[in-house]
Amino acid sequence: MTDIFADMESEVRSYARSFPVIFERAQGSYLIDVDGRRYLDFLAGAGSLNYGHNNPVLKEALLAYISDDGITHGLDMHTRAKERFLEALRDIILAPRGLDYVVQFTGPTGTNAVEAALKLARNITGRHNVISFTNGFHGVSLGAMAATGNSHHRDAAGIPLTGTTAMLYDGYLDADVDTAEILDRMISDPSSGVDHPAAVILETVQGEGGLNVASFEWLRNIESVCRKHDMLLIVDDIQAGCGRTGTFFSFEPAGISPDIVTLSKSLSGYGLPFAVTLFKPRYDQWKPGEHNGTFRGNNHAFITATRALEAFWASDDFAAHIGARAEQMTKGLDAIAAGAPTGTLARKGRGMMQGLSCSNGELAGAITAACFDSGLVIESSGSEGQVVKCLAPLTISEEELSEGLRIIGKVVNQIVSKQFRQAS
Amino acid sequence: MTDIFADMESEVRSYARSFPVIFERAQGSYLIDVDGRRYLDFLAGAGSLNYGHNNPVLKEALLAYISDDGITHGLDMHTRAKERFLEALRDIILAPRGLDYVVQFTGPTGTNAVEAALKLARNITGRHNVISFTNGFHGVSLGAMAATGNSHHRDAAGIPLTGTTAMLYDGYLDADVDTAEILDRMISDPSSGVDHPAAVILETVQGEGGLNVASFEWLRNIESVCRKHDMLLIVDDIQAGCGRTGTFFSFEPAGISPDIVTLSKSLSGYGLPFAVTLFKPRYDQWKPGEHNGTFRGNNHAFITATRALEAFWASDDFAAHIGARAEQMTKGLDAIAAGAPTGTLARKGRGMMQGLSCSNGELAGAITAACFDSGLVIESSGSEGQVVKCLAPLTISEEELSEGLRIIGKVVNQIVSKQFRQAS
Amino acid sequence: MTDIFADMESEVRSYARSFPVIFERAQGSYLIDVDGRRYLDFLAGAGSLNYGHNNPVLKEALLAYISDDGITHGLDMHTRAKERFLEALRDIILAPRGLDYVVQFTGPTGTNAVEAALKLARNITGRHNVISFTNGFHGVSLGAMAATGNSHHRDAAGIPLTGTTAMLYDGYLDADVDTAEILDRMISDPSSGVDHPAAVILETVQGEGGLNVASFEWLRNIESVCRKHDMLLIVDDIQAGCGRTGTFFSFEPAGISPDIVTLSKSLSGYGLPFAVTLFKPRYDQWKPGEHNGTFRGNNHAFITATRALEAFWASDDFAAHIGARAEQMTKGLDAIAAGAPTGTLARKGRGMMQGLSCSNGELAGAITAACFDSGLVIESSGSEGQVVKCLAPLTISEEELSEGLRIIGKVVNQIVSKQFRQAS
Amino acid sequence: MTDIFADMESEVRSYARSFPVIFERAQGSYLIDVDGRRYLDFLAGAGSLNYGHNNPVLKEALLAYISDDGITHGLDMHTRAKERFLEALRDIILAPRGLDYVVQFTGPTGTNAVEAALKLARNITGRHNVISFTNGFHGVSLGAMAATGNSHHRDAAGIPLTGTTAMLYDGYLDADVDTAEILDRMISDPSSGVDHPAAVILETVQGEGGLNVASFEWLRNIESVCRKHDMLLIVDDIQAGCGRTGTFFSFEPAGISPDIVTLSKSLSGYGLPFAVTLFKPRYDQWKPGEHNGTFRGNNHAFITATRALEAFWASDDFAAHIGARAEQMTKGLDAIAAGAPTGTLARKGRGMMQGLSCSNGELAGAITAACFDSGLVIESSGSEGQVVKCLAPLTISEEELSEGLRIIGKVVNQIVSKQFRQAS
Repeated sequence: MTDIFADMESEVRSYARSFPVIFERAQGSYLIDVDGRRYLDFLAGAGSLNYGHNNPVLKEALLAYISDDGITHGLDMHTRAKERFLEALRDIILAPRGLDYVVQFTGPTGTNAVEAALKLARNITGRHNVISFTNGFHGVSLGAMAATGNSHHRDAAGIPLTGTTAMLYDGYLDADVDTAEILDRMISDPSSGVDHPAAVILETVQGEGGLNVASFEWLRNIESVCRKHDMLLIVDDIQAGCGRTGTFFSFEPAGISPDIVTLSKSLSGYGLPFAVTLFKPRYDQWKPGEHNGTFRGNNHAFITATRALEAFWASDDFAAHIGARAEQMTKGLDAIAAGAPTGTLARKGRGMMQGLSCSNGELAGAITAACFDSGLVIESSGSEGQVVKCLAPLTISEEELSEGLRIIGKVVNQIVSKQFRQAS
Repeated sequence: MTDIFADMESEVRSYARSFPVIFERAQGSYLIDVDGRRYLDFLAGAGSLNYGHNNPVLKEALLAYISDDGITHGLDMHTRAKERFLEALRDIILAPRGLDYVVQFTGPTGTNAVEAALKLARNITGRHNVISFTNGFHGVSLGAMAATGNSHHRDAAGIPLTGTTAMLYDGYLDADVDTAEILDRMISDPSSGVDHPAAVILETVQGEGGLNVASFEWLRNIESVCRKHDMLLIVDDIQAGCGRTGTFFSFEPAGISPDIVTLSKSLSGYGLPFAVTLFKPRYDQWKPGEHNGTFRGNNHAFITATRALEAFWASDDFAAHIGARAEQMTKGLDAIAAGAPTGTLARKGRGMMQGLSCSNGELAGAITAACFDSGLVIESSGSEGQVVKCLAPLTISEEELSEGLRIIGKVVNQIVSKQFRQAS
Repeated sequence: MTDIFADMESEVRSYARSFPVIFERAQGSYLIDVDGRRYLDFLAGAGSLNYGHNNPVLKEALLAYISDDGITHGLDMHTRAKERFLEALRDIILAPRGLDYVVQFTGPTGTNAVEAALKLARNITGRHNVISFTNGFHGVSLGAMAATGNSHHRDAAGIPLTGTTAMLYDGYLDADVDTAEILDRMISDPSSGVDHPAAVILETVQGEGGLNVASFEWLRNIESVCRKHDMLLIVDDIQAGCGRTGTFFSFEPAGISPDIVTLSKSLSGYGLPFAVTLFKPRYDQWKPGEHNGTFRGNNHAFITATRALEAFWASDDFAAHIGARAEQMTKGLDAIAAGAPTGTLARKGRGMMQGLSCSNGELAGAITAACFDSGLVIESSGSEGQVVKCLAPLTISEEELSEGLRIIGKVVNQIVSKQFRQAS
Repeated sequence: MTDIFADMESEVRSYARSFPVIFERAQGSYLIDVDGRRYLDFLAGAGSLNYGHNNPVLKEALLAYISDDGITHGLDMHTRAKERFLEALRDIILAPRGLDYVVQFTGPTGTNAVEAALKLARNITGRHNVISFTNGFHGVSLGAMAATGNSHHRDAAGIPLTGTTAMLYDGYLDADVDTAEILDRMISDPSSGVDHPAAVILETVQGEGGLNVASFEWLRNIESVCRKHDMLLIVDDIQAGCGRTGTFFSFEPAGISPDIVTLSKSLSGYGLPFAVTLFKPRYDQWKPGEHNGTFRGNNHAFITATRALEAFWASDDFAAHIGARAEQMTKGLDAIAAGAPTGTLARKGRGMMQGLSCSNGELAGAITAACFDSGLVIESSGSEGQVVKCLAPLTISEEELSEGLRIIGKVVNQIVSKQFRQAS
């Protein structure tokens, strides 16, 4: 049944290998395959489906727009759909948070938004170097990939990646070592060999890197280093943003003020390709068309994104819902970890971006595979694939989340117990 | 009325400056603004709307799919929609042409498809250098931008672009100089300073570069140079493909067999973000997930792309239609050029990718601006913006095309006559 | 009197600014200017005159060779002079130490020897990245400069420096942090963003970097990291080698076995341009002439270098002499530092590569300037120029060394006392 | 007898393979091996011995200087020897030619002088790209190597070489194609893909590249392109300068005014390592010590260089002598070429930088090998080693030159006749 994929699709395909069925439909927290089997989705488009699959509120708006022959493709021309998105973003998100950003509609992929951010930072400062962090992930086009830590991706470049310096993320060394201080020391030292950076780019929680969480203090320290050395602070909020950690932007509770922010994944709300780069108005030094792209500004995404902002962020209810689900997840994962032999499992992450750090990647892989057999789509992340990552839709109900955690708990119990029995 | 754009959208916006209205709806060959004014569209999403705006056949399929909660976002998991697209691509396009390619679903932008192509070529050969051509355009993410000629884009990188060598496109020197021979000489010479390339990347007709047309003989010569020196031939068919020059792939009439082909823009048929990289099966040396991206495989685009292939490419009718319209365009533009003072205007291009080369960029700019005032959306291209580019939908009717050409002719007459009177 | 220099010599000149006289002759530990004034030399050609100026033993051999029309320039052809140098290097230096190296005669500059080392390491491993260290100095040609930490030099490149990653030298963080362990962690982590290195390049004592000393344990740990991750260990012994730290190679007491070693500066013994790159025979993967240069193999330098090895390294007497002088210097500098207010001065370095670390660069600059007024040529080093560096000839007598230390002590006393009085 | 070389010297050695004897002494135009056999030297240190081996006038000055304990090594401090060199360079060379250059004493290798030139040009202009030419050779340290065409050297870098664009040298295409015009067109075209260059670097006669001669008109055209586009003109006169083509600087008869000039090889006159970079005073934008190096300013070389300028360039006699010998060489080589079957041999080059272009590299290699057997040291050059290069000392006598040409003629006759007989 999957012959056409084996015949025609490149070996580069990856998720399809972990979930070897053909999906056909999806609703809310569930994927449905061609045989009608339903799978609870704890992957959620790698964080692109914060409002669930085919959210009916968004769907209605999209259907109406298409039916009415609203502009689908308009390059970066002004459209009514774009106008309304800008208004909603300003009125619902930016203004209430006291954020003053202009919006660049980049190509509709996260990596493109990062490419734009890096160009902008380099052009503003006239410097080429950008500080990235261990285990960071920012995309795999050449510019963004230089800031990505993963050697699996880096080695595929076929050419040395330049223009970045990898520094130590929060917690990379012993807990008492402030890696922001090491960064400051190297930048302050004119003979460190680290060229004066244009910018620092970071994720507040590293999704692909294994749910590593930067403390708010560390984020503030990094911001201070940026101010001290006249470097721009870029927060790549592509995975952690759009509510994933509990607030619209993941950096809100840290009290920092990034100069540039990238958003994508769940920004459209409906899983449609969409990305923006936000920056403080004084940094809007682009010349017209310097960074372009055929699909910048996806009008279908404007429609669903606008509707998502209106439906989920106009009041505090949704944030409260996320908070409750996050707490539920924390408790559930803690319980699972507590039930496993010491040192085997540990809860990790923040908000609805949590998971279980396993003692090794094999264990994590065994857990996710067994979950799928039990009807749960879930993946691992981290440098060795050692972290089981729960990226459920933020709209998930208490019951659905319980069900997902129950499956994980059951699977962990089976696998870890078995390993324990074998080992003893 | 456009205040929100001035306030909130980055200065990087470009097309919106040429067409300072707010568009709301679109049908076939027409854009409609918020005041209900209709504009004939000779820009067509920079070649992304070969089947016109909101083509009803595709629209119907898309509405049904959305209504039925078909998978919208599934990372690169197998879906029914992807399966049908692969079948249609194989059965309607590749097999009948004797082409044996596997399909990589890259991030849904042309530049991402090019990034994938460049990585693949470098990894297969273990070489870093890629030959690009004067006036070529392949995107503005860092890897693709290195192969793009335009200094407006290149200078925005803020970092030297590496890994490519710009060579002379067909016709760059005097007509009797075969620039493929110069390429061969430099690659053959072990002391030329041009490192042995992994690949050559080219457009058969350079859209952004100014509608420069490579002769079929030159394309064959380049292919021979590639074979002689064990280099891969990459055809970037993002703008010239999907029927724009009269055949599905622009390189078909040249009789060449590219190793890698990139497609995007009109591939979805509906203006939805979508891109693929095709390559010969023996070059499918990707490891799983080496090149990835959240929106690779846009399921809405699968639906419309599949429907477009079925509706337009299952028979020869559409190709015949394009041929007729292209001939009409050739005659129309020739007539316009002939009516202008000698040396002022010349027709350029191939198929439905034609335009008028003006004696300078100011003239071309004046023509496109006046066309817009007359209800025609049209843009210029080329290194100095000197080429008025007619990228009408391929589905345009004889009458609509006549109307567009009539507007151009009228505008040219007014402007050129006026300049002529002023000069004399 | 110095008009011709102001008129004709580039602003790039540097030492001439610190010592604004015209030197004419030199003998042993003394420089003599055109007015006959004698200066004790604690700079010694930045470590190129370990055997003093115009050492009479070497001078005699050189005069005889020139008088007899020995080959002066022979590219890299075999000459009697080269033959004898190779024999002396093998018999007097390498064999007794159990070292098995082949010799590459690079261009006669340290930076050229480093360029050769980096090329070799990259070619052997097929990797591009090389680990360098904070405050390291390896030269200012483009390849070597990428491994050099100093931004004064790096920024002059006018182009980003690539192919290296700067890591933390021993002692860069708190004393209890083993920076070799941080290196190991980043190399071991497939997602650290540090590409698998071809090699590590280091100085055992950083001369230009401010007399930073790597502990023997750290050097062994770095060697272990290299072995663990299949990386080559390159010791740049250009300044610390040739006896400067007490043994011919600076790394001998650490018990490590570098894969590649660079030597220059004092290798000729007479101050003549000369450099070699040594490496283990299994790494001699050069093709003939791949790395070349007109002056590789300076036959005059062969003569003096051979004579220097015979005269100074055939027995242990010279090493014993260095040890005694180093101990004298340690005591002298400790006494000077002890006499200054707490926190003002501290002794630094190893062997005859010691100096005084000052609380800031201004103080160090004031000390060296006042020393010159008192007839002592001495310079500062370090990232802020904060370290007064005593690079006396190794052949210096007890009395000469006492005299130099006396001048430094007197100057320190005057300057520090004066500052202290002003401050209080 | 050569065991020590096989045992101890790296495989990178090259000339020693062509001339497998051990040389011991040298005088004027002759090398003498350890068995007392004399070889006429048509290699002359690859152009480093324009005044012959151990020229007695220079030798006397050097012996006196060493005997008197003149400064041997003084970093870049002012010395009497440097003062006199600067005076001689100004009074004998620069002033009479109306040239206004300041002098940078770089590391004593040609490649280091080129590194300095490239840095300077990039810093002055703030641009990274430099135009180099097919078959150019400028050294093998990383910066200079990027401007070097030879893949044998380039491939040894182990890392992509960046910051240069290789363009077509004069005569690379058909004789009627002006490659300077192609350069102009690409630089003028904002979409050519060639980034606006900081500078053009060229040799007026390409020595390693195969004695390719740039016409004076082409050099003037290149200078015009530089002026038009605000690029610096760098003439690398390391091999062609110091009288090799008949005038002190090779570019004099072309009437151009380079902004930067590099000199090395025969600059010391005695074969001692020495190099300078000259540039117009307004471009002296170095900060002190930005480009440095331990052996910059070789005082022994100052002595012999000064003496060489006084002895050979204070009058026109030496230039006249070179002219006569060049004419003799032209006639001799023409006669040899004329005696060979059509298409086999052709004379190439300019001044005393001439040779025979052979139909292939094997023939050239056979000729040089047979010459050595007949007592003539001579090498081939060019991308395929196809050009027999006669780099006799400029001081060669009429009789010595005749003898060398006689040997070449005899060898050519034997080899070509034999091949001709075998072929027929």
